Amino acid sequence: MSVITIERKVLEKNDEIAGRNRKAFLSRRIFVFDLVSSPGAGKTSILECTAEELKGDLRMGVVAGDVQTDFDAQRVARYGIPAVQIVTRGGCHLDAKLVEDAVERLDLEGLDLLVLENVGNLVCPANYDLGEALKVVVLSTTEGEEKPLKYPAVFRRASVLVVNKIDLLPYVNCSLETLRENALSINPDLRIFETSCTTRAGIPEWCEWLKTRAAETH
Amino acid sequence: MSVITIERKVLEKNDEIAGRNRKAFLSRRIFVFDLVSSPGAGKTSILECTAEELKGDLRMGVVAGDVQTDFDAQRVARYGIPAVQIVTRGGCHLDAKLVEDAVERLDLEGLDLLVLENVGNLVCPANYDLGEALKVVVLSTTEGEEKPLKYPAVFRRASVLVVNKIDLLPYVNCSLETLRENALSINPDLRIFETSCTTRAGIPEWCEWLKTRAAETH
Repeated sequence: MSVITIERKVLEKNDEIAGRNRKAFLSRRIFVFDLVSSPGAGKTSILECTAEELKGDLRMGVVAGDVQTDFDAQRVARYGIPAVQIVTRGGCHLDAKLVEDAVERLDLEGLDLLVLENVGNLVCPANYDLGEALKVVVLSTTEGEEKPLKYPAVFRRASVLVVNKIDLLPYVNCSLETLRENALSINPDLRIFETSCTTRAGIPEWCEWLKTRAAETH
Repeated sequence: MSVITIERKVLEKNDEIAGRNRKAFLSRRIFVFDLVSSPGAGKTSILECTAEELKGDLRMGVVAGDVQTDFDAQRVARYGIPAVQIVTRGGCHLDAKLVEDAVERLDLEGLDLLVLENVGNLVCPANYDLGEALKVVVLSTTEGEEKPLKYPAVFRRASVLVVNKIDLLPYVNCSLETLRENALSINPDLRIFETSCTTRAGIPEWCEWLKTRAAETH
């Protein structure tokens, strides 16, 4: 049995479980997204800002994936957000089974929004359906404008791009316009938000969009 | 046959080819390192600075791995460096076979130093021996001081840590001291350099070390 056959079988099994997850989320009318980025692009910081901004409006839960620590779940839990950590112990992405098991440890009742915060990796998470409604990719301005061309799969699979750390634009060699063009050349349907967790720029617009999507799921 | 068995077999086969690569590099007395980081940490920028700094002293070659484009090989080639691009077409790391094939397209004769610039990924490259003398991991200050704890495998396998983008320290929430402590708690033997490709800080020290290692390999 070749490695490729094994991989196809792994992905088929994953998609089957992802289908179960999706059904469970939809039956509870929870809007679920998979949050993907390189290490350090600011996924957890965006969730912290989002938790503050949505307080009183939407009830959010987080499943945080990480290779080794539970720092991310701890960080969002400080905002009163129900959070479960998946420690992959070397695994480079979340899969549907890990999410299915983690969700059992989370009280879904009454949640409007569930975020599946993936392992920091711009390559491997692209291939794995977790049962989410859509994927959101975060790219920070410090990573450079050419990254959508260099790592196209995740930008093709995502519905939303959050360009984060726009407060650092004066200090880095990155043109927002070129970044946008590059991203849209890979995926013309990408919805793009531009944010800074330091200045809070763009956070209200991003949260308004989340509210609309959660309302549509209800 | 389980996925784990397949993975073990893949790694065994990889290590066998890596052994062949290592022998070939050593017989030509070339100092070879595997350069690993997240996307956008500055691997190629460091190679550009290194090429300028070492000009006339060391003859450097580059094998650049990328998921989709040949931007990185193009960038270093502008400095007169012999460079070959490996496009992995979705693959999340280099392996020894990809390097063996790429090296055939490169004239090794007369090289003192060969850099295997890995795909931007802080997780998967940790498990793959390419035949290098050692691994160098680059972490940029914008990624945050806790990354060695969150992605320990690559910091454990590396011999050198280059902390890049130190010019951005005034604008980001990152303590160099904590970053250093975190890295050394994972791997007390790490040699640490602190660099900026904008101000050139730390580049001479890094290049002095490369010259020493290349001289030792001769």
